[in-house]
Amino acid sequence: MTQPIPMVEIWRGDLLESQHLGHAVVCDSSGQVVEAWGDDEKVIYPRSSCKMLQALPLVESGAADAFGLTSEQLALSCASHKGAAIHTDRVQVWLNDLGLSVSDFRCGPQKPSDKDAHEALVRAGKQPCQIHNNCSGKHSGFLTLTKHLGAGSEYTQVDHPVQRAARSAFEEMTGEDAEFYGIDGCSAPNFSTSVTGLARAMARMAKPTVKGARAQASERLVNAMRTHPELVAGEGGACTELMRAMNGKVAIKTGAEAVYVAILPEQGLGMALKIADGGTRAAEAAIAGLLVKYGALDANHPMARKRLHGPILNRNGLNTGHMRLSPDFIQL
Amino acid sequence: MTQPIPMVEIWRGDLLESQHLGHAVVCDSSGQVVEAWGDDEKVIYPRSSCKMLQALPLVESGAADAFGLTSEQLALSCASHKGAAIHTDRVQVWLNDLGLSVSDFRCGPQKPSDKDAHEALVRAGKQPCQIHNNCSGKHSGFLTLTKHLGAGSEYTQVDHPVQRAARSAFEEMTGEDAEFYGIDGCSAPNFSTSVTGLARAMARMAKPTVKGARAQASERLVNAMRTHPELVAGEGGACTELMRAMNGKVAIKTGAEAVYVAILPEQGLGMALKIADGGTRAAEAAIAGLLVKYGALDANHPMARKRLHGPILNRNGLNTGHMRLSPDFIQL
Repeated sequence: MTQPIPMVEIWRGDLLESQHLGHAVVCDSSGQVVEAWGDDEKVIYPRSSCKMLQALPLVESGAADAFGLTSEQLALSCASHKGAAIHTDRVQVWLNDLGLSVSDFRCGPQKPSDKDAHEALVRAGKQPCQIHNNCSGKHSGFLTLTKHLGAGSEYTQVDHPVQRAARSAFEEMTGEDAEFYGIDGCSAPNFSTSVTGLARAMARMAKPTVKGARAQASERLVNAMRTHPELVAGEGGACTELMRAMNGKVAIKTGAEAVYVAILPEQGLGMALKIADGGTRAAEAAIAGLLVKYGALDANHPMARKRLHGPILNRNGLNTGHMRLSPDFIQL
Repeated sequence: MTQPIPMVEIWRGDLLESQHLGHAVVCDSSGQVVEAWGDDEKVIYPRSSCKMLQALPLVESGAADAFGLTSEQLALSCASHKGAAIHTDRVQVWLNDLGLSVSDFRCGPQKPSDKDAHEALVRAGKQPCQIHNNCSGKHSGFLTLTKHLGAGSEYTQVDHPVQRAARSAFEEMTGEDAEFYGIDGCSAPNFSTSVTGLARAMARMAKPTVKGARAQASERLVNAMRTHPELVAGEGGACTELMRAMNGKVAIKTGAEAVYVAILPEQGLGMALKIADGGTRAAEAAIAGLLVKYGALDANHPMARKRLHGPILNRNGLNTGHMRLSPDFIQL
């Protein structure tokens, strides 16, 4: 088995302080590997990086149209949002439209990562609830499909029709049978694939090879993500900032434990990477590096520089170090 | 150069999701390596794990006695505290005793990691200040020595008498010349050493081999840490919980970018480890494993199990996975 390769370096002064290893694959829409680093067959959980795959049944089943979902709602169904007002307000409206309430969610409560939203809760003496869960948009999509199918309330169970549909779409897009599944932070099942399988699925999202409902659903979800980068993560989030820096040409998505994917419709390419140790800072740097290498991101854009290089500031705002891509990975 | 070895595994369901590599060394007080994993000559920044070394000049200079510092204050001088009231109240009293104010600190403001303290600030509409900085105890020690020496106000400068004294103590204890230094999160210089050098310094803290001011200072600082585990980190912190689990027999200390050290006076041993990727969860698991292996920590103590195994709970409190030490490192 090929080992992960050095991908991202953390420097302080003149010493390499920490280093992240990882695996990455770029695929084209025929499913062929264009370029790979580390072990392209490494089996991983995509975690939240595959939300757009989990959302495919929502659209291709007709549920999204039956409930009149907007492009904003489709973006939220693919989001790991920060629980800011722009996210939670829209999720609440969605729940209202479904005739459901927060208690119908099965994602669990989560403190908003948006600073203002968290501080507003504290000042109001309120606890975070399920609507603040970064996955509440995805779960709104699950609830929409549940209602459309007339299925039961326990939509995160692995044998629920919504999760069976999500698994089918996932396996068809990755081109692999899922060998494992784990329970995600939001209690939905998360199915395993190789890094190549995940990149292949993203290439197929980028440029569907077969016309039909799957192709239309893919295009609508990718366009929704590209059109509403602020809904996919939130202010200060890497997905939001890097998608803005690419002027909506590319959709990207992070996943827990340092997974990152990119969907490049113009080039018909998909990218997937996993940092072996689960370090998010490295996944953000590595996806930025891949996007620069493939001409989608300007290496000198401030949002690209922030993820690629830092600087690493301390609590007095002093520059104490920097990040860089390992020369073994990508030389910018 | 020896590579880092697999030390800590993160499992979700039946899949190894992420893995951390690292280096670790156990030394005795003669400075000899008792056991080592990975590259024992790996050069690292100890970051906050060496605060007890940085505090040596405070005690051996006579400054601590001249200002009547208590055991609690010595513990705070070695702490990375959470900015809880038990920490900031004591730091404020210390500043008052010195006739100084928060503006004399050079550590920069930091949001308290203690939830209650942070929420109290938000409710009061106040911003975190330098007293909340996890290093404000160390900086109180620096200010005390500065005053004792009649030195200038810019005590974080590398050529300031306080930092020159800290460097000398550090190099004497590690037995190595510091090849690099970096600016730490709190703006103080942080000097490099090998993992072996750091373990050697901890063994010398555990069991000084030469009687005198250095030995007395070492013993007082180690005893202060062991006596006041709640001041060294805070409620919920790994240092606090694991020191309590060992009933005050051992002093341990974490450092940023996944460094951890342990001082075992009864056995005359010192331990140091660095997780290569900077992942703190792995450093906490690894030090717990070393302490179990050397008979200092009960593997079945709930606080040991928490760091060694998890469980990894999701936002609904479901058990989604677990951690374990890599069999290549330690088999419990």
